[in-house]
Amino acid sequence: MKILAIDTATQVAGVALLSENKLISESIINHQLNHSKKLMNTLDQMLENVELKYNDLDYLSVAIGPGSFTGLRIGLATTKAIAQVTNLPIIPVSTLESLAYNISYSSGIVCPLLDARRNQVYSALFQTNNSGKVKRLTQDSALNLEDLKEILNSYNQPIFFLGDGSEKFMKDFITSENRLLVEPYLRLCQPSSVGVCALNHLDQATDFIKVEPSYLRPSYAEENK
Amino acid sequence: MKILAIDTATQVAGVALLSENKLISESIINHQLNHSKKLMNTLDQMLENVELKYNDLDYLSVAIGPGSFTGLRIGLATTKAIAQVTNLPIIPVSTLESLAYNISYSSGIVCPLLDARRNQVYSALFQTNNSGKVKRLTQDSALNLEDLKEILNSYNQPIFFLGDGSEKFMKDFITSENRLLVEPYLRLCQPSSVGVCALNHLDQATDFIKVEPSYLRPSYAEENK
Repeated sequence: MKILAIDTATQVAGVALLSENKLISESIINHQLNHSKKLMNTLDQMLENVELKYNDLDYLSVAIGPGSFTGLRIGLATTKAIAQVTNLPIIPVSTLESLAYNISYSSGIVCPLLDARRNQVYSALFQTNNSGKVKRLTQDSALNLEDLKEILNSYNQPIFFLGDGSEKFMKDFITSENRLLVEPYLRLCQPSSVGVCALNHLDQATDFIKVEPSYLRPSYAEENK
Repeated sequence: MKILAIDTATQVAGVALLSENKLISESIINHQLNHSKKLMNTLDQMLENVELKYNDLDYLSVAIGPGSFTGLRIGLATTKAIAQVTNLPIIPVSTLESLAYNISYSSGIVCPLLDARRNQVYSALFQTNNSGKVKRLTQDSALNLEDLKEILNSYNQPIFFLGDGSEKFMKDFITSENRLLVEPYLRLCQPSSVGVCALNHLDQATDFIKVEPSYLRPSYAEENK
């Protein structure tokens, strides 16, 4: 069983190919927002390197958000196009939940933070217990900083912050020794984490027509129409 | 400060590009042992994707072993060739120590296992404490299974097994609930882990002439000469 994971939700353009028992290939490009230029090339090169064709795959998965509006549109358009041609089902994955898988061996609360602008973050909380498993505690939401601070104060465990907003909001959230900013190399979206997250949600595989981005909030342009 | 990490010590051909505060790019190909064919292409493609040249780098790093004799020779030859042309220093990194960085947020003993044949494994032990830091406890060695079992029995903590021998020797070592086989996608060598390990050993940067593979044991062919 093989799954192709695509992630362009944030500044990272990432692709990974996994089976249940193996990471077959992974490519991460964390450099400027030109995902549309590189994504298809990276995909084709990856499949060629491991001597596979789209027909050899069983599932596609894609990070559906929250994240950058443009990034999500590129990731979803690409994944849906491949699904339409190949008839493969898509497993839609939360960007925040897949981020938690970056440190699935930690013990505590994982709190991904994506910058949602206007003093808000996209976040959700996940429980880890030194085992590689990740358990969701709260739903993906756009939250005011103050509201998230209050929620976090109710947890008496180590709290790990990652995601592309974690550095920006460090001084807001990392207020004690029990709160840690995750090391840089594990801080951003990893396509293998998207793939593993999808492997844990095989029951959510669906037809490409039903896959929608999870923006969580209308864009600024839309709100001001 | 930018560092290019190369790893072909095992069945994975991996390349990563990091700075102190960012994983810039990573490529993992875990498919057959044709590292020599793909390594230079992957490197060139990566640098092009992130608009960097070899001249923009500050360090090279390479997994020097233990590992496959042929794989190590390819990795070292490639890294040394680049170093000779660019005058960049090389940070040699233990394959085993870099494996421990795959689960640097775990809490317990990380025990990488590489199959050394003839009922031996290449291994070393590392302490993690839910923080992203990795502390070496024992030196890289070729060990008889029975000897490693005895060493492990002296630790009263969770023990995590990873590396390409971990599945093969699972029944030998995973004998209680406190001993865990790491999830497949984090089990094999990750080039970003080689790079992060190198970032923690900047003081070991050296001239390419001084970088030697760490086979730990003569090859079977050499022993029987």
